[in-house]
Amino acid sequence: MKDCNIAVVGATGAVGKEFLKVLEERRFPVNHVRLLASRRSAGTSLSFNGVDLEVEETKPESFRGMDFAFISVNTELSKEMAPIAVEQGALVIDDSSAFRMFPDVPLVVPEINGQDVEEHQGIISIPNCCVTPMVMALYPLHCVNPISRIIVDTYQSVSGAGGEAVRGLSEQTEGLLQGKPVNLEGSLQQIGFNLFPHIGDFLSNNYTDEEQKMRDETLKIMHAPNIGISATCVRVPVYVSHSEAIHVEFESHMSPEEARKLLAVAPGVQVLDDSEKPEYPMPWYVAGTDQVFVGRIRKDQSHPNGLAMWVVADNLRKGAALNSLQIAEEVLKRDCLQPKGQRITSSINP
Amino acid sequence: MKDCNIAVVGATGAVGKEFLKVLEERRFPVNHVRLLASRRSAGTSLSFNGVDLEVEETKPESFRGMDFAFISVNTELSKEMAPIAVEQGALVIDDSSAFRMFPDVPLVVPEINGQDVEEHQGIISIPNCCVTPMVMALYPLHCVNPISRIIVDTYQSVSGAGGEAVRGLSEQTEGLLQGKPVNLEGSLQQIGFNLFPHIGDFLSNNYTDEEQKMRDETLKIMHAPNIGISATCVRVPVYVSHSEAIHVEFESHMSPEEARKLLAVAPGVQVLDDSEKPEYPMPWYVAGTDQVFVGRIRKDQSHPNGLAMWVVADNLRKGAALNSLQIAEEVLKRDCLQPKGQRITSSINP
Repeated sequence: MKDCNIAVVGATGAVGKEFLKVLEERRFPVNHVRLLASRRSAGTSLSFNGVDLEVEETKPESFRGMDFAFISVNTELSKEMAPIAVEQGALVIDDSSAFRMFPDVPLVVPEINGQDVEEHQGIISIPNCCVTPMVMALYPLHCVNPISRIIVDTYQSVSGAGGEAVRGLSEQTEGLLQGKPVNLEGSLQQIGFNLFPHIGDFLSNNYTDEEQKMRDETLKIMHAPNIGISATCVRVPVYVSHSEAIHVEFESHMSPEEARKLLAVAPGVQVLDDSEKPEYPMPWYVAGTDQVFVGRIRKDQSHPNGLAMWVVADNLRKGAALNSLQIAEEVLKRDCLQPKGQRITSSINP
Repeated sequence: MKDCNIAVVGATGAVGKEFLKVLEERRFPVNHVRLLASRRSAGTSLSFNGVDLEVEETKPESFRGMDFAFISVNTELSKEMAPIAVEQGALVIDDSSAFRMFPDVPLVVPEINGQDVEEHQGIISIPNCCVTPMVMALYPLHCVNPISRIIVDTYQSVSGAGGEAVRGLSEQTEGLLQGKPVNLEGSLQQIGFNLFPHIGDFLSNNYTDEEQKMRDETLKIMHAPNIGISATCVRVPVYVSHSEAIHVEFESHMSPEEARKLLAVAPGVQVLDDSEKPEYPMPWYVAGTDQVFVGRIRKDQSHPNGLAMWVVADNLRKGAALNSLQIAEEVLKRDCLQPKGQRITSSINP
């Protein structure tokens, strides 16, 4: 396995910084790391393996000679940059929703559909940070007993909305504790001591696009187009980790004991489920960890083949940075850095 | 209608104080108000209609001559005090879960099953503060198109856990903003910038009793024993108002438009549902109001006869104090202060 040249686009963002940590921790074979960001952030530096690396402004030539380009910026910027990176020969692993539902872009959670990376044509997308924990918790069960329907309600942390939202939570909360009114400048809604069922844009079916992603991306990753899925996505005043209350229906009966056994051996999943102690996952404690934690597994008393459960994962790590790097590891393992077919740039820039 | 003598037990608690506000606002026919609490709180005073009333220690004779005893204390204390108050001739309206599921105790949300107050035998219970908003939002739909199943996940404020939990949220949050570790003394779990799926005690089916109440009490209030209900109840770092993501299945198809029309004319319900503006209820803004707010009404894309929605209500008002007083209003309207049958004390203290 050769050492890789890696471009990290959006290096100064919350996910970008977490990506550098993960890259160090997992001893990915690195030759050269190039940190890229907007002009505004260029010139700052970030530490990687004990060395300060300067952040450069992203330019088309930034991707020359790169094996991988990890992109974690907004959707519009991803749409602009990914095709350029592909043209320059890099395999793009993209954190945005720009390409996820493209038929020729694999959408990958390595523990579930790692083999899909082999079909890439220059871009591999990582799922929405709420989708990854859910499929990690459900796919091991689905393999044994097909899932027919999923109801999920989320409790999503502000770091999923970026660094400004994180600062907003601190500033609003501090002000409110001092009795000051909230300054909503730059915020969608008050988040200090509040919450709101609105993440992303509203669609014509009155779901938000975040909720629609919960459905569409799950079906694509699990290769299970017939599962019914309905989600309500809610932003809560928590810094890191997304939590999810999940109610799942199977084709036939599955006991909580069987689900616990299956999840206990599922890669990347940790069962934390003891009503005696009691023990269940909570976002404050899950922050900074790599696993998807599952607890509160119980028979759904409203459905003969149903289970209810509670899932929490660090949205910056398994929800984003860690999953991105695991995809690169999967690509190297399967020796498919070069795409099989035509590069995807042609279909994006016709 | 004669003016009533009223005992308020737990007057210094969050619900007790809110009850005094509601009692003033709604111009309930009051002759005399007696504020009762533990020995610890005796001697303090609270303002009612511009007059400072002294809080007395609750004693058996405190209920002598009282028409109503509004009790908002913990379940153990309610079990102890309610029979004494009944024996002394008061009609008890109890906020605890002590008597709710007793066959001879009406469990009442006046807009839904007001007629049930006529069956009281000395005690009327008010529902759990999460149950009331849900039945307020669903019963008007159920009357037109019977509900077969409800999935609900809650986002419950700390005031539902009492004054100490409210102070805990402030203290923990302030400390965390200053980088101090959380002191968990007296708290179930960290609530500052955290949340947890654990309200009440765990039952043998691994639901919490709070979740089980969502099922059992809803069926009793709606007189609909066959609805399937599954809940996950979660405490969130919000001071006041409980929010709920609800997914409901009907016997036949119901459109979001029809649901909005039915809820628009339902007493005590306000539809706040506009994805264009956008507009939806949020706990910070619902706090201090009397209505149950419903938004995010949409067709459930995972079920042909399903709707998804988002419900928020002030847990101290419609969830507790307001509903209690509305029950008393219903009793006076129906002229049933005196019980029809034997007083319930006999079945409680055999």
